[in-house]
Amino acid sequence: MQYFEDIEVGRVVELGRHTVTREEIISFARQWDPQPFHLDEGAAGESLLGGLTASSCHTYAITSLIFAQVPNPLAAGAMMGITMRFPTPVRPGDTLTLRSACVEKRLSRSRAGFGVVTSHITLLNQRAEETCVIESSYLVRCTPEGVGG
Amino acid sequence: MQYFEDIEVGRVVELGRHTVTREEIISFARQWDPQPFHLDEGAAGESLLGGLTASSCHTYAITSLIFAQVPNPLAAGAMMGITMRFPTPVRPGDTLTLRSACVEKRLSRSRAGFGVVTSHITLLNQRAEETCVIESSYLVRCTPEGVGG
Repeated sequence: MQYFEDIEVGRVVELGRHTVTREEIISFARQWDPQPFHLDEGAAGESLLGGLTASSCHTYAITSLIFAQVPNPLAAGAMMGITMRFPTPVRPGDTLTLRSACVEKRLSRSRAGFGVVTSHITLLNQRAEETCVIESSYLVRCTPEGVGG
Repeated sequence: MQYFEDIEVGRVVELGRHTVTREEIISFARQWDPQPFHLDEGAAGESLLGGLTASSCHTYAITSLIFAQVPNPLAAGAMMGITMRFPTPVRPGDTLTLRSACVEKRLSRSRAGFGVVTSHITLLNQRAEETCVIESSYLVRCTPEGVGG
């Protein structure tokens, strides 16, 4: 487990990867974003994006999934704010890499034992294009007494 | 189908509702955001949020789903930008209502036959608390020649 004190401002960390299949794109879209350009290659080919693309919500879900699978996770509490952009669409076969950099950290004024961390998070495809860019602030627990040095 | 010309700046439209079950929260989290406070009521009870809550990504997915089910959908093309906040967590049994208001519209400078629409979108729970607040800009097709009046 990583605590507030373990987070180093400015350090870029690679958190994991995920390869997206055509089947995953269609299956997510069928359940949560059933629009023709996420479901059907024919309709997608005629859309502005010129082919099947993942729902933005699916792209965000992939960032959650990679975060949740990190071997040494953050002792994160509630999320306080998030903004997100999806500059490049995700397409079948893309391998996405999640990177995170802490841009700011401070102790919480309202919650004893917690810090507020702001991170710049990017999900890059195999051509290093940004498919999702997130700025997020969240509470992270401070090292409990008696843990670590 | 609703086209660029059909959109009225300032009008608030109610797009639909969705009731969230405990099973849906856990099932989404298991697949996309497997963190204890989205999966397990015991762990969730000890978290900062004091009970089971939906993943933010699940909350966003619910907005997608309601949008995709609108009987008279927008002729929307690609999304250009989005920011989103999750002020109040979604809990089991919540009934969520999606509202959208166009805050700005203009013809696209780069894509003939399209307009750029900016909307303020809120997903409210049964106590009228905002669970998701989105500002989004997207391309909307103009009325094709020969359609409508």
